[in-house]
Amino acid sequence: MPQGQPEAVPEDGLTTRERRNRPLVIVHTGLMKGKSTAAFGMALRGWNQGWSIAVFQFVKSARWKVGEEAALSALGRLHNETGEGGPVEWHKMGSGWSWSRKEGTETDHAADALEGWREIQRRLAEARHGLYVLDEFTYPMKWGWVDVDEVVTTLRERPGHQHVVITGRDADPRLIDEADLVTEMTKIKHPMDAGQKGQRGIEW
Amino acid sequence: MPQGQPEAVPEDGLTTRERRNRPLVIVHTGLMKGKSTAAFGMALRGWNQGWSIAVFQFVKSARWKVGEEAALSALGRLHNETGEGGPVEWHKMGSGWSWSRKEGTETDHAADALEGWREIQRRLAEARHGLYVLDEFTYPMKWGWVDVDEVVTTLRERPGHQHVVITGRDADPRLIDEADLVTEMTKIKHPMDAGQKGQRGIEW
Repeated sequence: MPQGQPEAVPEDGLTTRERRNRPLVIVHTGLMKGKSTAAFGMALRGWNQGWSIAVFQFVKSARWKVGEEAALSALGRLHNETGEGGPVEWHKMGSGWSWSRKEGTETDHAADALEGWREIQRRLAEARHGLYVLDEFTYPMKWGWVDVDEVVTTLRERPGHQHVVITGRDADPRLIDEADLVTEMTKIKHPMDAGQKGQRGIEW
Repeated sequence: MPQGQPEAVPEDGLTTRERRNRPLVIVHTGLMKGKSTAAFGMALRGWNQGWSIAVFQFVKSARWKVGEEAALSALGRLHNETGEGGPVEWHKMGSGWSWSRKEGTETDHAADALEGWREIQRRLAEARHGLYVLDEFTYPMKWGWVDVDEVVTTLRERPGHQHVVITGRDADPRLIDEADLVTEMTKIKHPMDAGQKGQRGIEW
């Protein structure tokens, strides 16, 4: 953790205190796993600050994040029962979303993804949460289901003090331009290269 | 998440099931933050599997990980009270360690680091935990306080089913050779470049 003097003081008219409290857009991208994992690790810190945490998983299958969902949901329940930490909501895109679950209808992933983004826009406008984890949200943007320029504008104009973390490969350059912090997870070595299979507790 | 066939099937005489359950040595290295955060995110998955989780923080200051410590410790208490998930231990190197806190003595970081490693060796020999997070453990190795070859040998010969995650910059090549999975966190963009100060809930 680099401490002390930043490399440059920006001419943004803000005080250090204001800059310290600026809400951030954070992108975790790159080919390697760890993008989502690090985002959920950040949610631990936010929870401890008492922030309202909301996770939106833009994936078809809910299998791979069950461990994080169970643990963060347990922290959310702990908050509800004891007041410790902050509340946690975990929404995933399956056949629609938890707030509008469709029964027995054909799944339209593009429409579902856009519906998820519309809900996030509403919540951002209301300053509903302290930390949003938009997990694998780069893909709906890449596939043209959600308009990148609209995402950038919504993020730029969001009110209040809302941090947003977006994960996924192939983050659009416009999103990277808008982001305050971008980390790329790079593969040096992965057990699957040597024939290792994914395993419980490590991969999900 | 790459699914399906691995790129190569190793000639290690193991069945797929055995390979799926192989305990892993994982290294998170690189210049960017996210190394520890992703390790603590992995601890969420391990907790949900009911594994015994043990974190050893090899840093002088305890300030920067308070959020993760509070949240994971809360999950550990939840386990103790309800049986949900697994137990969590969090040890940090300050003036000595929690199991041997020295009062009013001068701090010898090299000796403290070695003492921490000796304790980890004992626990590995007893197969005490399911997941060890050795946070910023690359530094005592880099500084010669802990012998890298001894670490590699201990990891290679550890019994049972114990996953070990080691974080920190400048991981030694011998450690990287021994590891099953190595991720490098690379900076693309960081707010400190633009004069942003570290902030509560994001940096700690």
